[in-house]
Amino acid sequence: MRVLHATPLTAAGFAAYGDVIAADPGTRVPMNDGRFARFDALSRVEGGAARIGIVRALQATALPYEIDRLERHPGGSQAFVPLSPLVFVVAVAAPGDGFDPGDIVAFVSNGRQGVTYRAGTWHMPLIALEAGQEFLVIDQGSTQATDTRRLDEPVQLAGLD
Amino acid sequence: MRVLHATPLTAAGFAAYGDVIAADPGTRVPMNDGRFARFDALSRVEGGAARIGIVRALQATALPYEIDRLERHPGGSQAFVPLSPLVFVVAVAAPGDGFDPGDIVAFVSNGRQGVTYRAGTWHMPLIALEAGQEFLVIDQGSTQATDTRRLDEPVQLAGLD
Repeated sequence: MRVLHATPLTAAGFAAYGDVIAADPGTRVPMNDGRFARFDALSRVEGGAARIGIVRALQATALPYEIDRLERHPGGSQAFVPLSPLVFVVAVAAPGDGFDPGDIVAFVSNGRQGVTYRAGTWHMPLIALEAGQEFLVIDQGSTQATDTRRLDEPVQLAGLD
Repeated sequence: MRVLHATPLTAAGFAAYGDVIAADPGTRVPMNDGRFARFDALSRVEGGAARIGIVRALQATALPYEIDRLERHPGGSQAFVPLSPLVFVVAVAAPGDGFDPGDIVAFVSNGRQGVTYRAGTWHMPLIALEAGQEFLVIDQGSTQATDTRRLDEPVQLAGLD
């Protein structure tokens, strides 16, 4: 079974899949008479009828973990921003009609970085390493179009170093 | 000078101005084979070209505080979701061409509740009670249209009880 090791999430590394949502000094602009710094337009919301929701992990998922499917939302982007400063892992493949299992890559967020999957980006369904972990979600809501593709052979997401 | 006392933020109380973003049992749906609870569609994103950014308070603002202006974004909604569990206060007036200073009301978030100002809702520019407080912002970005209206006489936002 192929073993996938997550690497630290960076904007450059994740660019083919979407955006990293983190206070980026390069986007910093003053706001409200200088009382705030605004880190502006870190990510775009794609697709119509975007909604804001919250997801909460009811159970922890342990690593290593067998990835048996990826899914995508062709009609819009999907952002997950941690509301608790806990690391989390994502596995993705670039947008397209399908993907080669060998193209799946994994990233680990430091718990202060959110991610936006661009419309069509293939991704492992969300897992949480701790129960109770919460994320803000910006997407078209739970009724959005979703394509799911099962892997012929699972890929193992390795434990974090 | 009129003194404004903030009341606890509730969905019903805030309905004329926008949405409260908080895990609401009434919207709970299962997700990802029951590993997560999803609190779905807590808020709508209005207007086109929505962006996701972060704002960080560089300085604390003390209460009582004199509100000398409100602003609105006629082209889209604006959501603030706390990334640190710190209380914050908002002051708002209902959407419309203008507002009567007597119609301004204030709400205090418990630090786990976010708010969405509906397109056109008049609101006090964001203040933070602690330096370093961060919010996720979902709106049309810092270049969005903004109308500002100064008050003939300031309104005092009282300290929290």
